[in-house]
Amino acid sequence: MRYFEDFPEGLVVELGEVALSEDEILAFARQFDPQPMHTDPVAARESIYGGLIASGWHTVGAYMRLLVDGVLGDSASVGSPGVDNLRWLKPVKPGDRLHARLTVLEAKPSNSRPEWGIIRTRGEMTNQRAEVVMRVEAVNFFTRRMSGS
Amino acid sequence: MRYFEDFPEGLVVELGEVALSEDEILAFARQFDPQPMHTDPVAARESIYGGLIASGWHTVGAYMRLLVDGVLGDSASVGSPGVDNLRWLKPVKPGDRLHARLTVLEAKPSNSRPEWGIIRTRGEMTNQRAEVVMRVEAVNFFTRRMSGS
Repeated sequence: MRYFEDFPEGLVVELGEVALSEDEILAFARQFDPQPMHTDPVAARESIYGGLIASGWHTVGAYMRLLVDGVLGDSASVGSPGVDNLRWLKPVKPGDRLHARLTVLEAKPSNSRPEWGIIRTRGEMTNQRAEVVMRVEAVNFFTRRMSGS
Repeated sequence: MRYFEDFPEGLVVELGEVALSEDEILAFARQFDPQPMHTDPVAARESIYGGLIASGWHTVGAYMRLLVDGVLGDSASVGSPGVDNLRWLKPVKPGDRLHARLTVLEAKPSNSRPEWGIIRTRGEMTNQRAEVVMRVEAVNFFTRRMSGS
C-alpha cells in the first residue's frame, strides 16, 4: 500500500504499454466523441489526419487505466481535484503501442487537512516511434502514513 | 455548418442535459478508472464520498458528447491541441442531471495557418442543485469561412 510518503519529488514510475484497436477507437468515439476522424474510417482518410485516430479522451482514459493498475489501485489515493496542461501532441492510430510514464513533480503536505498530502505529477504517453503523443499534469491527494500503520 | 466566424467572444451555447446511470458509471470505470469509489457500490458507501461516484473522465466524456452533438458535429472543427484547468468540483452520482454550457472566452485568427481560427472556450457541467460539478478550458481550431463558401 503506497501512501503520500511513497511519492517523493522526482520519482519516475513506468506504467507499461497499451494499444487501442480500431474497434475500441470506434466504440469509444461513438459513445463520447462522434466526430468523423474518430468514427468513420473513410472520412478519416480524407481528413488532415489521413486515417482513423483515437479521441484524445480515449487516449487519456487509457493512460488513466494504466495509472490505476500500476499506482493508484494499490495506494491511499483519495481523489483528484483536476488536471492541467492536457495536450494531445500527436495523433494516435489503431495499433500504436503507447508507453505510459508518471513523474512526480512536487510533493507537499496539505495545510488544510494534515492527514493528507498533495502530489503533482506529469503523465506522458509515448508511441513506438518515441514520439510523446499525450502529456498531462495532475494533482492527487493521498493520505499520509501514520506512525504505526 | 459553423465556421470560426460563428464563435465570437462571449457566445454562450446551452448544450442540453445528460445523466449517468449506475450501470454506465460502473461500465466506464471498469474499463478506464477501476477505483473502488467508481466500481464498487459497497466500498464507495464507506468512502469519503458516501456512495458511488462517476470517474471524472466519464463526466468529461459526457460533456464532450454533448459538445459534439450540439456544436462540433456540425462545424468546421479540425481538432484540439488540448485543455487546461479541468476541475472536478463536486462528485457526480448516478442519476444526477447534468446541464452543459459552452462559453467562448477568446476568438482569434491563427498566425501560422491563415485559413484557421483559434477558439478558447470554457465548458461547464451543472447538476440539478445548480452546483458546478466540472469546469474545463479548451482550445479548438476551426477553418475560416472563405468568401463564396
